[in-house]
Amino acid sequence: MDNTKYILSEKDMPTRWYNIQADLPEPLPPYMHPVTKQPLGPTDLAPLFAMELIKQEVSQERYIDIPEEVQKIYRQFRPSPLYRARCLEQALDTPAHIYYKYEDISPAGSHKPNSAIPQAYYNMKEGIKRLTTETGAGQWGSSLALACSLFDIELKVYMVKVSYNQKPYRRMMMETWGAKCVPSPSPDTMSGRAVLAADPNNLGSLGLAISEAVEEAMQREDTHYVLGSVLNHVLLHQTIIGQECQKQMEMAGEYPDIVIACAGGGSNFGGIALPFVQDKLTKNKNTRIIAVEPSSCPSLTKGLYTYDYGDEAGMAPIAKMFTLGSHFMPPPMHAGGLRYHGMAPIVSHLLKLGIIEAKAVNQLATFEAGIIFARSEGFISAPETNHAIRAAIDEAIKCRETGERKVILFNHSGHGYFDMTAYDAYMSGQLSDYEYPAEKVKEAQSCLPQI
Amino acid sequence: MDNTKYILSEKDMPTRWYNIQADLPEPLPPYMHPVTKQPLGPTDLAPLFAMELIKQEVSQERYIDIPEEVQKIYRQFRPSPLYRARCLEQALDTPAHIYYKYEDISPAGSHKPNSAIPQAYYNMKEGIKRLTTETGAGQWGSSLALACSLFDIELKVYMVKVSYNQKPYRRMMMETWGAKCVPSPSPDTMSGRAVLAADPNNLGSLGLAISEAVEEAMQREDTHYVLGSVLNHVLLHQTIIGQECQKQMEMAGEYPDIVIACAGGGSNFGGIALPFVQDKLTKNKNTRIIAVEPSSCPSLTKGLYTYDYGDEAGMAPIAKMFTLGSHFMPPPMHAGGLRYHGMAPIVSHLLKLGIIEAKAVNQLATFEAGIIFARSEGFISAPETNHAIRAAIDEAIKCRETGERKVILFNHSGHGYFDMTAYDAYMSGQLSDYEYPAEKVKEAQSCLPQI
Repeated sequence: MDNTKYILSEKDMPTRWYNIQADLPEPLPPYMHPVTKQPLGPTDLAPLFAMELIKQEVSQERYIDIPEEVQKIYRQFRPSPLYRARCLEQALDTPAHIYYKYEDISPAGSHKPNSAIPQAYYNMKEGIKRLTTETGAGQWGSSLALACSLFDIELKVYMVKVSYNQKPYRRMMMETWGAKCVPSPSPDTMSGRAVLAADPNNLGSLGLAISEAVEEAMQREDTHYVLGSVLNHVLLHQTIIGQECQKQMEMAGEYPDIVIACAGGGSNFGGIALPFVQDKLTKNKNTRIIAVEPSSCPSLTKGLYTYDYGDEAGMAPIAKMFTLGSHFMPPPMHAGGLRYHGMAPIVSHLLKLGIIEAKAVNQLATFEAGIIFARSEGFISAPETNHAIRAAIDEAIKCRETGERKVILFNHSGHGYFDMTAYDAYMSGQLSDYEYPAEKVKEAQSCLPQI
Repeated sequence: MDNTKYILSEKDMPTRWYNIQADLPEPLPPYMHPVTKQPLGPTDLAPLFAMELIKQEVSQERYIDIPEEVQKIYRQFRPSPLYRARCLEQALDTPAHIYYKYEDISPAGSHKPNSAIPQAYYNMKEGIKRLTTETGAGQWGSSLALACSLFDIELKVYMVKVSYNQKPYRRMMMETWGAKCVPSPSPDTMSGRAVLAADPNNLGSLGLAISEAVEEAMQREDTHYVLGSVLNHVLLHQTIIGQECQKQMEMAGEYPDIVIACAGGGSNFGGIALPFVQDKLTKNKNTRIIAVEPSSCPSLTKGLYTYDYGDEAGMAPIAKMFTLGSHFMPPPMHAGGLRYHGMAPIVSHLLKLGIIEAKAVNQLATFEAGIIFARSEGFISAPETNHAIRAAIDEAIKCRETGERKVILFNHSGHGYFDMTAYDAYMSGQLSDYEYPAEKVKEAQSCLPQI
């Protein structure tokens, strides 16, 4: 029998996260303080983050143990299945073997709980009873709402207004788990009020929502802040995805020639890619590892590699990364999780070193790919995930043309059940492409911090 | 390590459906023709159904092989996980062991593809290129849309208007898989036009949507009709759920004292229950098997056990079943899949024989249960599924009071991602209970067929 899916038993679930910092050929550039512009120390971060997460952010240990309490919750939906996309291969008439890691199965419907659960856990352990965060499409906000409900932590989520309007079900989901969700820009913070004063119809950005969540956490003693992507410890938590994939590809008797994931802040990409980057750095593997981003928010393919603010208001740490500028307001396209102006420092660093590749795809092509996938594999995918599917399909079509039997693995980061209006808009011809105007980079240049 | 979930390997997936008709202490009463009122023969059904499904409807064979092509598609999402609800047990502080079978994992998000896939398959094998069906909450319509997309069959779905309005995402989902979905009553059929003429604001019923779908299939040579519940062959296909549960409970080293599922037409209830009914009939097991229905549409607890029409217009077969009358229009409560006036003949027969029990629960109590479940187990459940959760929680609370360590198994038939507006309405106090007025049964009596 040819397997359709590869399932690991609970006892084969990885019990350690993999930390790429131990294997980088050059160390990551340090974070800088947004005010002093000097390298950040742990005490600078302590008002915002749990100490254990601050340690993980800079750790050079190759493996970090997953707490037993976190493993216990992981086991509800992990190990997640690895699928061989036999029906898609047939539909594309390709000799390529396509595999996808299926992260939809968590209660929140994406990979995000992999980091939400440990982040809520460490904060709970350190006595924190209240958290703030931001969310783009709502995948992160709902995952953290889930995690906070399990650890009895109060949560306030600033949701980018364009997504808040597009995806009301995501808000209701967060509320079902007991969280409070407000649209950003909001009148609750100085950063929000300033933007609303200038433009009451402002649709928000992830950078601005971060500013609001950080501002509130800084002002309240009882409140910490957590972030769903970009930071090293978030990518660390997500490496359980790629570690599982390594075992599952072994069960399938294959090794990927190409590993693909979409990239907004970089967490689902890092999650599947970093263990394969380790293989590439330490085992001489030749794998192509591709981050796929939207043409409308192309930080990796059109951005500057430089120190920039992590948020709109300049309150979050300054990081060296690919960036379109912290004031960049991406157009209201439907992959709300890919609308961040910057990119995870780890992902940026690996691209700069030539270890990974980046590719931009446009909106209509991603929905076309999502429909091909839904009508062959059955699953309806998040608009973000459709970026990875598009790139996987493009590689598989190349194989059809060259006759090569490449092994393609991509991360199916989440389902599209809350994005049906986007599919509806696509099918009724109401969606359009957005190309990032190259001259915009000059604007970015003009508001960079002086480091 | 105490398991959180029990996963069967692909090779342990059952390869035969279990047919309860082989083990019934008394045979099922035959179907009657809606016009002649005489027992139905296969030729009467041939214009509507694939011949293989007609054979399965009356088969007395204990096991029926699952075609290899159907198994192949099942394997994408089967065997489905069995969860031990440890967090829910803890939240309820109960000595009971609660297990739930997790059917949400199929691309359509419920148990319905278990029958949609073989029904589409047999029709495809018999050369049928076009199908009609009805759907209540949209779980069945979307599952059949998925199945038809895999077998390249054109599909038209009549969706009960109240759900069509409540759940627009379900329509978009069907369209994503390539199906056409119209609200019922529709102007496309005589049955629909008659109802609209009398009441343009009529919100529809499952009975009426069946009439519309049957009428169209009867009038078009190229079109067959399929049904998502009620009929024997549909319950047959669903028995893969209970058969898997038997193996998984064995892995867990326990046997259920109580098996619970919600019941609208009876397919998810039959699916989990019938293999345990077999144990009860042939292995002297004392299991309590409970069908849970809404207080607003209580066919099993308040209906008549009699021959009645399967649909509003009297075109579908007449069946002996518990019924509230084919003209009954249930109130617009959110468990759209539990709004059928009748009940599967098999389920009705088993209740009449005292082999199973039935219980009605009201809307607010089911959403309360759904929220308790979401905040402990994480998963957000369909409003239909919340009926089963309510009953399971009630039994677990009884155990807390008596100190008994009962083993409770329920069917988690589907997720609630398309029902977030119902949760929103519940949380904001806009939902109410609907009690079925007992005197309504007299109306039902007055429109029964003369058998």
